Amino acid sequence: MQNTQLDYRKELEKAAKRIILIHKVDTLVKLLLRSIVRFLNIEHANLLLYDQGRNAYVAHTSKGKAGLKIPKGFTKISKENQLISYFTKMHSQIIKADYLLFSHIGNIGGQLQNEIRDQFVVYNAMACIPGFFREKLIFALFLGKKKDGHDFTDEELGFLSVLSSDAVMAIQNANLFQDLNEQLLKNKELFLQTVFALSSAIEAKDPYTQGHTERVTHYALAVALELKETGRIYGIDHERLFDNLRTAALLHDIGKIGIAESILNKEGALTEDERKEMQRHSDIGAKILSGVNGFYEPILGVKYHHEKYDGTGYPDALKGQNIPFIARIISIADTFDAITSTRSYRKALSRQEAVELISEQSGKQFDPVIVEVFLNVCKKGKI
Amino acid sequence: MQNTQLDYRKELEKAAKRIILIHKVDTLVKLLLRSIVRFLNIEHANLLLYDQGRNAYVAHTSKGKAGLKIPKGFTKISKENQLISYFTKMHSQIIKADYLLFSHIGNIGGQLQNEIRDQFVVYNAMACIPGFFREKLIFALFLGKKKDGHDFTDEELGFLSVLSSDAVMAIQNANLFQDLNEQLLKNKELFLQTVFALSSAIEAKDPYTQGHTERVTHYALAVALELKETGRIYGIDHERLFDNLRTAALLHDIGKIGIAESILNKEGALTEDERKEMQRHSDIGAKILSGVNGFYEPILGVKYHHEKYDGTGYPDALKGQNIPFIARIISIADTFDAITSTRSYRKALSRQEAVELISEQSGKQFDPVIVEVFLNVCKKGKI
Repeated sequence: MQNTQLDYRKELEKAAKRIILIHKVDTLVKLLLRSIVRFLNIEHANLLLYDQGRNAYVAHTSKGKAGLKIPKGFTKISKENQLISYFTKMHSQIIKADYLLFSHIGNIGGQLQNEIRDQFVVYNAMACIPGFFREKLIFALFLGKKKDGHDFTDEELGFLSVLSSDAVMAIQNANLFQDLNEQLLKNKELFLQTVFALSSAIEAKDPYTQGHTERVTHYALAVALELKETGRIYGIDHERLFDNLRTAALLHDIGKIGIAESILNKEGALTEDERKEMQRHSDIGAKILSGVNGFYEPILGVKYHHEKYDGTGYPDALKGQNIPFIARIISIADTFDAITSTRSYRKALSRQEAVELISEQSGKQFDPVIVEVFLNVCKKGKI
Repeated sequence: MQNTQLDYRKELEKAAKRIILIHKVDTLVKLLLRSIVRFLNIEHANLLLYDQGRNAYVAHTSKGKAGLKIPKGFTKISKENQLISYFTKMHSQIIKADYLLFSHIGNIGGQLQNEIRDQFVVYNAMACIPGFFREKLIFALFLGKKKDGHDFTDEELGFLSVLSSDAVMAIQNANLFQDLNEQLLKNKELFLQTVFALSSAIEAKDPYTQGHTERVTHYALAVALELKETGRIYGIDHERLFDNLRTAALLHDIGKIGIAESILNKEGALTEDERKEMQRHSDIGAKILSGVNGFYEPILGVKYHHEKYDGTGYPDALKGQNIPFIARIISIADTFDAITSTRSYRKALSRQEAVELISEQSGKQFDPVIVEVFLNVCKKGKI
């Protein structure tokens, strides 16, 4: 008996330590309940966990043969529920209530009893252990029957109330992590939306390029995804590649802001001088972004998206693999959108004609590997 | 004796729990060392903690009367140090070394001894406890003499090695937090630099407004800081206000991208029609940004930065407190910079003349409270 007791303590202590590095609350709670059921040898365990977003206590259930089906009305309870009030009230006393047994509910005064008893009945629980962070009830842990039919011992209940404070810490910690991660995602979203808004505004100066930026970004990312899925990208952090490519594609024509409207909006073909002036946009774009730390890769994409694989492009007449990878992807996406859109001086090519033209330019204007992937993406209907 | 032992365990366990929610590694280590010194009643404690950035183990020292002055050459050691190798090698054995006593160093084979003994001597240590995360040595904890002169008991050393695994978890957790926070800061920086780069590019279209955006942002933030420090902002999250104001100031003229160059670059005064067209920039700016979630406040600043306190501004002729707070701040910053800069059709006012003009416009063009604060900021030389 002494040994079994030591075992459950040791195992549950280990579990409590392990959950500290789990930063998803759901996973953490699942693991905690599973450990409790297993090492206490009980039929099931349930946790009513405070959910900030819903401002209520939401039910989590242990899996297993004896898992309970909770009636829908009981999957969450409000902060005003008598069970919550009971623990909160007890917590402010000098001698705190570390747990509540089903068999003791009768001792609780007056009308409080019924709502509390309801909760115990729903969870088929013998005991309930509160989890506090400072003055706030974070959870109520319901314990099912022990499989050996015995009651919980004082020693077990005491230990569980210590374990409960470990679990509270782990949950608080995970919540903070989730908040930070949400903040990160939100900021990333904000960044992309802002860049998109500004690049769209610049694009709006040219009535013929409506939606160009968005389409080029879409094509470029589709190509990159196919490159990744067919194992053609190695030695690069995929997520970073996608972030950099997205940024570069959104900003690839940003330098047009430095080109005179008289050239941007000219009807008909450009003169040689005007063409040269227009070509400055990739260099101007790179210069505009040069003050942004951490934009090394996107700037390469902006600067070199008009280079050609055979070395006949601009601004630096780079050749083959010397053209940065991101720029080679944007180049094909940019060209495909340009030739399938109507311009003042020519009509749009059909999709079929455009695909043929891209295919012909393999090894000339474009990287053959990227052409191959591009054609596959087209076949799959993703472009 | 039994009681004292229980006490130190209980107190150190409590301390180990407390540090989980500390997310600054330095603070966490300081608290840990302080608790160990206090509850074990030892002279001092030192921790060699792995520092990813420096790829070495860096010394942390407990404060207190018996704090050691560590010679400079010993404030960090490389991963190749024999002490690190010893623990790492022992950790891969089936029976792991949970600690190393000064009195046992002699048992370690051959040339390993000297470097290890050096470390013990520097830290005047009786025992050293390693802290592992999986296969990686995270720290080596050095314990000074016990104040009562006794040796460490097996029971104490066993307990400390359990505590050490708690500390490892807490440190790993704090490191993850610090990484996330750094990522957040970096992203915020990226966002601001990008917005600044793009707004500067747009500003560059008008040779007379070089640096305008940057100066307006600086003035607006200086005013907001003074408003905050003199307790004139209440009921608003200051950090958010500053973020929103910065964004709005950086983007306040973004709508100029929608105005024809012929008007933007016109030498001399504008005709009535041209003026009306030019005034569209605040509405256009708001429209450009309208697709960005979470830009509610900055958009108000962009849209209404040309409203006047007496209701004679544009686009909506808002009056007094109906003009959004952020817009009222940008308005004064924008005007001050405009009148102290040379335009094609007039010379710049002197600083003194400009301050007088702003002062005269209190309650007319500008919010009197913001004028008062603005004048104070000028007096302090912050504008």
